[in-house]
Amino acid sequence: MRIAIQDTYPDDVAHCYGCGRLNPHGYQLKTYPAGELTESRFTPEPYHTAIPGFVYGGLIASLIDCHSTGSAAIFKMRAEGKEPGSEQAPRFVTAHLEVDYLAPTPLGVELRLVGRAVEVKERKVVVDTEMFAGEKLVAKGHAVLVRMPETMAGR
Amino acid sequence: MRIAIQDTYPDDVAHCYGCGRLNPHGYQLKTYPAGELTESRFTPEPYHTAIPGFVYGGLIASLIDCHSTGSAAIFKMRAEGKEPGSEQAPRFVTAHLEVDYLAPTPLGVELRLVGRAVEVKERKVVVDTEMFAGEKLVAKGHAVLVRMPETMAGR
Repeated sequence: MRIAIQDTYPDDVAHCYGCGRLNPHGYQLKTYPAGELTESRFTPEPYHTAIPGFVYGGLIASLIDCHSTGSAAIFKMRAEGKEPGSEQAPRFVTAHLEVDYLAPTPLGVELRLVGRAVEVKERKVVVDTEMFAGEKLVAKGHAVLVRMPETMAGR
Repeated sequence: MRIAIQDTYPDDVAHCYGCGRLNPHGYQLKTYPAGELTESRFTPEPYHTAIPGFVYGGLIASLIDCHSTGSAAIFKMRAEGKEPGSEQAPRFVTAHLEVDYLAPTPLGVELRLVGRAVEVKERKVVVDTEMFAGEKLVAKGHAVLVRMPETMAGR
């Protein structure tokens, strides 16, 4: 059975609106290993509108953000020879996010985000993302993720 | 009386989740001229969590995105010698968005976004944003906005 990386975040850092399993209000995005890559899928709600008929850019940025932090945890565990899902995942936060909106993203279609590791260091991971609506590439992401400071979780 | 630029978007393109006055589900961000700059304010909900106590990055990206499209409309009107609020605003969409997360953004504090025009051309505007939580600079944005294609609104 596949385990989403967000389902292995420690309980005290699993409340992210975008991807925390303990945030009932949020999107609960799930990110999985997919060969050498990572994958997340999400179907926006009808009210996640930009111009009518299209997905608003803030949601796209949010999905790329959380997909990237999840991907960073997956890539970091792999770099350490650990199987994602086998133990609590390391928690990354975003330092820098870039989104290129390549084409209007239609509403009513499942979005698929595919992540690729650009760089994996001790406390920093860089992830590139391609987001597809059906077969069409609609957005690209570039994110720099850093290990969450322990102080941020009040530990 | 100050008029938010989003309150002068044409009805058929006023449904953005982030800033559309006709989207009852959304954030309804409002952006105003502020001297040579622009300003938006927003207080996140308690569930807009990243790590508990802090605002999630996707919301910050969303606010910067919509603040930038609104700012682009204001800067474009000014460049044409028009007073923002005096007539329907031109509608911009985001082509490229960058966010630098400089410090964790505390929940429970009003956020203030200040926009500056970097470039104003016929169909393209570039906006830099600084986002403050209280007095603290917590994030920076850089956005490239383009005039919405008429076809996108089905016109």
